[in-house]
Amino acid sequence: MKYGFGIDLGGTTVKIAYFDETGSMLEKWEIPTVTDNGGAQILPDIAASIRQYIDGSGINETAILGLGIGVPGPVNAKGVVNKCVNLGWGVFNISETLQSLTGFPVKAGNDANVAALGEFWKGGGQGCENMVFVTLGTGVGGGIVVEGQLLHGAHGSGAEIGHLVLNRDETIPCNCGKYGCVEQYCSATGIVRMAKLRLAATDVPSALRGLDNMTCKDIFDAGKAGDALALEVLDQFYNYAGEFLANVCSTVNPEVVVIGGGVSKAGNMLISGIEPYFHKYVFHAASGAKFTLASLGNDAGAYGAFKLALDAFGK
Amino acid sequence: MKYGFGIDLGGTTVKIAYFDETGSMLEKWEIPTVTDNGGAQILPDIAASIRQYIDGSGINETAILGLGIGVPGPVNAKGVVNKCVNLGWGVFNISETLQSLTGFPVKAGNDANVAALGEFWKGGGQGCENMVFVTLGTGVGGGIVVEGQLLHGAHGSGAEIGHLVLNRDETIPCNCGKYGCVEQYCSATGIVRMAKLRLAATDVPSALRGLDNMTCKDIFDAGKAGDALALEVLDQFYNYAGEFLANVCSTVNPEVVVIGGGVSKAGNMLISGIEPYFHKYVFHAASGAKFTLASLGNDAGAYGAFKLALDAFGK
Repeated sequence: MKYGFGIDLGGTTVKIAYFDETGSMLEKWEIPTVTDNGGAQILPDIAASIRQYIDGSGINETAILGLGIGVPGPVNAKGVVNKCVNLGWGVFNISETLQSLTGFPVKAGNDANVAALGEFWKGGGQGCENMVFVTLGTGVGGGIVVEGQLLHGAHGSGAEIGHLVLNRDETIPCNCGKYGCVEQYCSATGIVRMAKLRLAATDVPSALRGLDNMTCKDIFDAGKAGDALALEVLDQFYNYAGEFLANVCSTVNPEVVVIGGGVSKAGNMLISGIEPYFHKYVFHAASGAKFTLASLGNDAGAYGAFKLALDAFGK
Repeated sequence: MKYGFGIDLGGTTVKIAYFDETGSMLEKWEIPTVTDNGGAQILPDIAASIRQYIDGSGINETAILGLGIGVPGPVNAKGVVNKCVNLGWGVFNISETLQSLTGFPVKAGNDANVAALGEFWKGGGQGCENMVFVTLGTGVGGGIVVEGQLLHGAHGSGAEIGHLVLNRDETIPCNCGKYGCVEQYCSATGIVRMAKLRLAATDVPSALRGLDNMTCKDIFDAGKAGDALALEVLDQFYNYAGEFLANVCSTVNPEVVVIGGGVSKAGNMLISGIEPYFHKYVFHAASGAKFTLASLGNDAGAYGAFKLALDAFGK
């Protein structure tokens, strides 16, 4: 039996997990992400944490096939990261660097794509060949699997579906600098933004009025309780989400659309809200895509990162 | 040296070409597509034409590796066509049927995807690994190549990018039954439609006013001559085309976008019109895609069809 590590590198914590080659997660832990000094300490910290785990557990190093890591930014097929803004990183080869720090072979990928691979392997996409994964969280990320393989794209930025244009007339800029991106309407932040705009534009009474720090969950909860304004905002969100997912599915024609991220905690209400709009907008030959919720939660990135290593070094 | 046939099956003619395994087209000809009786005669006609060519040329049959065919409708990986409306066909396995009629192995694909494969192999996409191909013709079709492989999709309908939704408020239906599809604005037909709507909505003088059978070429010609209304319509088209191609590129992140179809005869004027809008709408990490014109013209389908056969049976 071979073993390996899956690493999910985020802006505040690094999740590290130890797997056997069948994909059983044997252990997991977290360390803080230290972004001082341009993130210079991040990879040495990861290497030290893995070394400590190996030494403390008496693991036979020859049984370790390698490491996989998901990174919050574009990564090309050779492991070159291209500016991870949240980490302070510029351009360098993360695979080579982490390999020289640990002594194990390393395979790297974009974090959303890697989480998609995790859901494809052990989560909502199990048993499929073609999958679209979308995370509706603070932002909107995505990952696409085509005939069992992650779509990386020519510059390591495949499946940036949070930045498809949904509304060319938008006057407020997205974080990316463009106008009218999916993320401005379909992220948790975007749904709250739409609710605030709607509250400001009308005098309709609503449970959301006067909430100090309105969250996306507040809006779903109000909707469940029948609040008309909340339902109107959710309907607008479902309409936008149905449209952009229809466009993605008309393009790549998957068997399944897996929805993750904080907004997916709304559960089946979310899917039954999106599906009618999806069917309104999708090309008929691509309408067979089934919607399902992500099932690995915060572990999707670690599973997918280990799968990257398993695919690269497991044979 | 091995040889084979590439067949491009259209609604009015069938283009058949004979290739050697390096991709040199040694001969090509056409036969009419007989759509009477639910298209029952189409495959027997193709088989007879190939038989006649082989017998007339004294070809050694053992050197023939197989046939590839592009079909105007969805085709899955096993060769099952799912309703080719223009041919009168229902659901059956075209690969098995044509193999039993000819005695040669057959690989089938969707016509737009197959043309994409042709341009990828021997046309505008040569030397790339990731390509988006779009045909702006009577309709809008597409094909996507990911790491050297055609994206077929789960139901054989990958890259139906002519039916992405561009305008959710459109009140006139697309031929597909939905509203606001790319094809309604970016096909030759769609550009003429936009010009007619604009002419009806204004009194601005224009060279296009009073033309009996206005064509897309008339609009490009008027635009080149400085006609303000034509330029306005073309700008609207460039804006729509830039937006939907930006969304496709943010999704699949190709090195190159190859534009074919009748509208591509406008040449570099078309590319310089679309590119500024593309850069306005595309996600920065996917903005490296280069635009180029298709170079195989009507032969792209035959080249791609033979490449299908070569990939399947050439080893």
